[in-house]
Amino acid sequence: MVELDFEKGEGLIPVVAQDYETGDVLMLAYMNRDAWLQTVETGRATYWSRSRKSLWVKGETSGNVQTVKEILVDCDLDTLVLKVDQQGGAACHMGYRSCFYRRVSGGEMEIIGERVFDPEEVYKK
Amino acid sequence: MVELDFEKGEGLIPVVAQDYETGDVLMLAYMNRDAWLQTVETGRATYWSRSRKSLWVKGETSGNVQTVKEILVDCDLDTLVLKVDQQGGAACHMGYRSCFYRRVSGGEMEIIGERVFDPEEVYKK
Repeated sequence: MVELDFEKGEGLIPVVAQDYETGDVLMLAYMNRDAWLQTVETGRATYWSRSRKSLWVKGETSGNVQTVKEILVDCDLDTLVLKVDQQGGAACHMGYRSCFYRRVSGGEMEIIGERVFDPEEVYKK
Repeated sequence: MVELDFEKGEGLIPVVAQDYETGDVLMLAYMNRDAWLQTVETGRATYWSRSRKSLWVKGETSGNVQTVKEILVDCDLDTLVLKVDQQGGAACHMGYRSCFYRRVSGGEMEIIGERVFDPEEVYKK
């Protein structure tokens, strides 16, 4: 197994999830060693939720799981890019395809993403 | 000015630098509030170096500066994507176009990036 450097981030590394077809950056999340091992084993993106302090299989609530197509690692072995197939077309809990649905310009934010689902419908279940 | 959330990361937010033309993820670095303000003001990607504990204008040594073309912010206001024009064609101090020049597959790493410059030549100056 490839040994990543979890020390610098106190047990966590940042992970960029990128749409494997369009190249859009979908989200940034974190992995601890368990999340990393589970991601490799299952082929489904599994992160560490810093707020819930638990492993988080992306999409376990919304159904919008991420199937891992390719894993890239950086020069310092402390950051990953996951190229994923995003089920349901939306990575963001706000219902957008990407969490990066707003552009900063001239000190203002402008919504440039398209809403794929209504979060109130999906998470109320 | 857009107020980002620097609290969660103890004063720092992760920033994904992405090639504005190809969509390749070039690197991940961090910004504190000063780096963020300087980036917006100058249009050149400026990060916080965690190792040197100082502001770091990307490319100030190598010449490989990043001109900011677009800034995207995530749902939680605590992560940025910078779409950049990467001068010199290489973001990585190892001489590769992207810091993510290795693919993880079957427990091994395979170099998939192309080397643009020889780091010994560039950094010995």
